Amino acid sequence: MFPRIFGHEAGGIVESVGEGVTELAPGDHVLPVFTGECKECPHCKSAESNMCDLLRINTDRGVMIGDGKSRFSIDGKPIYHFVGTSTFSEYTVMHVGCVAKINPEAPLDKVCVLSCGISTGLGASINVAKPPKGSTVAIFGLGAVGLAAAEGARIAGASRIIGVDLNASRFEEARKFGCTEFVNPKDHTKPVQQVLAEMTNGGVDRSVECTGNVNAMIQAFECVHDGWGVAVLVGVPHKDAEFKTHPMNFLNERTLKGTFFGNFKPRTDLPNVVEMYMRKELEVEKFITHSVPFSEINKAFDLMAKGEGIRCIIRMEN
Amino acid sequence: MFPRIFGHEAGGIVESVGEGVTELAPGDHVLPVFTGECKECPHCKSAESNMCDLLRINTDRGVMIGDGKSRFSIDGKPIYHFVGTSTFSEYTVMHVGCVAKINPEAPLDKVCVLSCGISTGLGASINVAKPPKGSTVAIFGLGAVGLAAAEGARIAGASRIIGVDLNASRFEEARKFGCTEFVNPKDHTKPVQQVLAEMTNGGVDRSVECTGNVNAMIQAFECVHDGWGVAVLVGVPHKDAEFKTHPMNFLNERTLKGTFFGNFKPRTDLPNVVEMYMRKELEVEKFITHSVPFSEINKAFDLMAKGEGIRCIIRMEN
Repeated sequence: MFPRIFGHEAGGIVESVGEGVTELAPGDHVLPVFTGECKECPHCKSAESNMCDLLRINTDRGVMIGDGKSRFSIDGKPIYHFVGTSTFSEYTVMHVGCVAKINPEAPLDKVCVLSCGISTGLGASINVAKPPKGSTVAIFGLGAVGLAAAEGARIAGASRIIGVDLNASRFEEARKFGCTEFVNPKDHTKPVQQVLAEMTNGGVDRSVECTGNVNAMIQAFECVHDGWGVAVLVGVPHKDAEFKTHPMNFLNERTLKGTFFGNFKPRTDLPNVVEMYMRKELEVEKFITHSVPFSEINKAFDLMAKGEGIRCIIRMEN
Repeated sequence: MFPRIFGHEAGGIVESVGEGVTELAPGDHVLPVFTGECKECPHCKSAESNMCDLLRINTDRGVMIGDGKSRFSIDGKPIYHFVGTSTFSEYTVMHVGCVAKINPEAPLDKVCVLSCGISTGLGASINVAKPPKGSTVAIFGLGAVGLAAAEGARIAGASRIIGVDLNASRFEEARKFGCTEFVNPKDHTKPVQQVLAEMTNGGVDRSVECTGNVNAMIQAFECVHDGWGVAVLVGVPHKDAEFKTHPMNFLNERTLKGTFFGNFKPRTDLPNVVEMYMRKELEVEKFITHSVPFSEINKAFDLMAKGEGIRCIIRMEN
């Protein structure tokens, strides 16, 4: 579905609202979100789910929910939407259900990073894994989402946070996000689940998988302690991936869960994540390693492709 | 390890206690349990686990924990213990950590069935699956454990309880345990997960797997609703079994857990299960379909082998 305006993680200010929109007004500060919250469907009404039936992410949909038309055009031809956000643009048009109204005092050039990956990792820890105070947590994958999961484990009060990554260059940086120890599977001949079990007297209390690699998912599950361990899957797997384990690993009282957007409901919960930042419980500055003007957006893609830095802000100034 | 005294589900009265035992006295009414609770290890101290490090079931151990000796002998040669209970006997010797002291007013010839399978199924529902009031629950396998899981779902307030079994002759009986509907996978060409999803607008809220068959485990997991569904594995799998599923089934916010003895801590929790019976919240009589004197114990084995009835009481009278 092309041509298309890409971009989703962002912050902005409401310029105008459509007919019938009462929850937002021009001037409101907002975070656009790639998934939505209609507040009416069984998922929105469930305390546990954030997978809105109406506005759940759909990467194939390039139009506005409702009339099924695009709101963008050039020379009379449609330009399509992307995950309901299309934020690589000075102006965009979004469904009200995908817009979170936040504290206007929050700096948009900082809290913009809370509208996708950082909240996903943070929520995986604080909403789903819920590590008890003093517990031990393993984080698989130390990209932005994994670092946010480590930050969440730190905020929840975990005392040991073990970062697992094949790239040792990430380890030093990860200390800023609460990681206390590191395991590089390349340094061991034993399976990483066994390495972690030996480090932690039988297994970690919680693990959070942020790579999308199915082997890491299996390791993240099998490394949790019997009796009470909980593993949480965050990384999006390959379409042909197959999760395999011996069922006794479950019978021995381990739990495996997955999460989407850290179980945050976009409109209900994101304003509170911004408040965590305002209260200085959550630091977002350390996730922002680069910044470029919109005219240099391709530099940001290059950084991402090379795995350099964590988040690069794209400034809409010229 | 033979010769050996088998038997575990039972009720009894303390005849005498060993040196240092202060929590039990002669005359106490008790349920022997195949697994134990030392009250000192990390599992016993965890609010979540009942998998005591010291006294966890071990079918290979034929002796008393501690001195590693058998307490039974014949003609000077040892007879070995079985799962710490050895209850096919008028008298037995047990570790205090495997003995639950119960209300002396509870009829031992009824509440004896609470010392293994019934509590396992009951606890899988009320302690682990925790179906919300008005929810929909699927029970895979309608043997004693599955029927107890249905009973637990009923007690928890589930409004639809769907029994799944390959043996339709169990369905009528299962209504007494709260089942409201039935699915026989043999009656359908579609996968049972799909049949259940179509019956329940996308999936059941909870499922409890009580067969030990790994395909049923996969079905039980995949039939729960995205966003909030929880599946609980109870049945003991074959040692070569492999649980397989697409990891997106987790990412879509489904949870998979397993349980051992319904997550009940034997000494702490079983007395409360007996009280549930005394308050008439839990009916045990309907699980007891047969009764034989000890001299006819092989009749009880025959019934079990033929899958007839649910529980057969073995009376120690002669």
